[in-house]
Amino acid sequence: MRALADHWVLMQLTLTQHDQSIGLLLESELAEVEARFAAELRSELRCVNDLVAHIEQFRGKMLRPTLVLVSGMACMETGQPAEAHRVLATVVEMVHMATLVHDDILDDAQVRRRASTINQLAGNEAAVMLGDYLISHAYHLCSSLGDAGVSRLIAETTNTVCEGELLQLANRNNWALDEQTYFDIIRRKTASLCGTCCRLSAVLAGADRSACDALYAYGECVGTAFQIADDLLDLMGTEDTVGKTLGRDLEKGKLTLPLIRYLATSDAPARDRLKEYLAACASPLTQAQVAQVRRWVVDTDAVSYSRRKALRLIEQAKAALELLPDSPARRLLAHMADKVLDRQS
Amino acid sequence: MRALADHWVLMQLTLTQHDQSIGLLLESELAEVEARFAAELRSELRCVNDLVAHIEQFRGKMLRPTLVLVSGMACMETGQPAEAHRVLATVVEMVHMATLVHDDILDDAQVRRRASTINQLAGNEAAVMLGDYLISHAYHLCSSLGDAGVSRLIAETTNTVCEGELLQLANRNNWALDEQTYFDIIRRKTASLCGTCCRLSAVLAGADRSACDALYAYGECVGTAFQIADDLLDLMGTEDTVGKTLGRDLEKGKLTLPLIRYLATSDAPARDRLKEYLAACASPLTQAQVAQVRRWVVDTDAVSYSRRKALRLIEQAKAALELLPDSPARRLLAHMADKVLDRQS
Repeated sequence: MRALADHWVLMQLTLTQHDQSIGLLLESELAEVEARFAAELRSELRCVNDLVAHIEQFRGKMLRPTLVLVSGMACMETGQPAEAHRVLATVVEMVHMATLVHDDILDDAQVRRRASTINQLAGNEAAVMLGDYLISHAYHLCSSLGDAGVSRLIAETTNTVCEGELLQLANRNNWALDEQTYFDIIRRKTASLCGTCCRLSAVLAGADRSACDALYAYGECVGTAFQIADDLLDLMGTEDTVGKTLGRDLEKGKLTLPLIRYLATSDAPARDRLKEYLAACASPLTQAQVAQVRRWVVDTDAVSYSRRKALRLIEQAKAALELLPDSPARRLLAHMADKVLDRQS
Repeated sequence: MRALADHWVLMQLTLTQHDQSIGLLLESELAEVEARFAAELRSELRCVNDLVAHIEQFRGKMLRPTLVLVSGMACMETGQPAEAHRVLATVVEMVHMATLVHDDILDDAQVRRRASTINQLAGNEAAVMLGDYLISHAYHLCSSLGDAGVSRLIAETTNTVCEGELLQLANRNNWALDEQTYFDIIRRKTASLCGTCCRLSAVLAGADRSACDALYAYGECVGTAFQIADDLLDLMGTEDTVGKTLGRDLEKGKLTLPLIRYLATSDAPARDRLKEYLAACASPLTQAQVAQVRRWVVDTDAVSYSRRKALRLIEQAKAALELLPDSPARRLLAHMADKVLDRQS
């Protein structure tokens, strides 16, 4: 079990007396998720266990299991998550970890959370197969719930996540990417899983349809805002605080919201300068080239525009929660939305 | 719908009057599997549909859906597969196609069934994600059966397949690999899925436990023999007849049964010559180096030893079928086992 402070939500929580008890409950539930994660992945084969042990270092904010657990608390009359919520929370963490391992191949990343990526440590081949092992175990654990409808919605969501990744790949080095396609990509690749975490948690709590829909909307908005925050960190953060290779979005030809906004709104000479610069760079860009682009973009409205977009999504997320009865868990969900833009890693 | 002759089993079938009707039934059922495969994978996104259209060229023998359908026929009183068998047959073809796409990344292969591999056509990144899209849709389709137990066994099998792949990766360039570990690898990565095809088909037909176990044993033995035949083709076949890049096993440091046998039984000078040669080669081996190794091995007992091992597995597979009542479908399963070693591709 790790320290309380490792979990992003808890770390940033200003707890009232009442909310402290939900913080402690969440802490012990997340520790249970970590234990179940390890138990599900244990293999007879040492070569498998060694790789699995390594990825435990990638565990970070646990956003997705937290969304499951707190949504469950918000929908259960007891205010406590049910057994099924613990299983689902472990499943979504496993799905997320699989996407991290495969994303690191796509991004050719070397560092994640200050540890070597699997592709860097053991090669792309091992990373492909370890990601497959994780996703397979996610479905395996999910089916232990004995509810084919839950398995179906998880798989429908991973279908969508893969489509988002493929759409993003198809738009690599497309410097004309528009904002609508950008939002379609991140809705699929990031927001859909966050929405499903919240919806399925409500379903498992026996909540009515309107509550399930409201929680999906909450999760989808939080997930989208979270991805914009990620984009901003990749452009503005430092590797030291973020703990992973930065500037990779641009290096790998991925346009992010600040860049799209800059290209759409800067005056013609500035826009042409950037486009010509990018066209002349060989792909992938070097770190020095990324730094040059960053210098041009940070001093414009593009960064604050992106933050405003994220803030509007956070307000939408909180508005969706209004449909649920007030509770410590609902207040925690609102607080989590507020904290999306504050994170440093 | 493709021509009858494309399906390996049908192509090689010497049909009696009675068995012709089962051949025609199987043909139309496999065409239905192809249609459902395409329908399940259809996306709103053109970039996804383009990749999916390409992999349809990889479709080959359809061994796994054939195992599902014929096992189903052997267990159903009507002699016809049920609706659930068609779904399961499509699921296992999708799982298999996902492993092909990811295997081609692991093997750095350029050609499959005379078409470019996805990694060659669109890059490793697209191949990683397309494989994920396929596996996700396999679980999605499987959950449409509404039976969490079936989803659970499919996921348990894919867990095992991934373990087999990881064990094989961990033994790359291990020229001391023993026969037991070799069989452990192929049991996991190939035979387990074939066994599950047959077992689940019996489960879906409502067969009793002993019939389910017998069919699992049949599928596992056929799958193991099939993999040995694959190893022999990689060593002895020509790219022209096999339709994929050959000699890759050795190039990528994978020891196969003929090589393991050669290293275990040839006299000391011959063994040392090969070991020293392999140790001196940079990884991956060149085509010329592979050809040199092939020349040393083909003239020894190692090839016929491997064939004998496969033949013994084929006899075991047929013996397992004795527990089922005689039927055209059971005779077809026996015939399929006999044909495993005859294939040219």
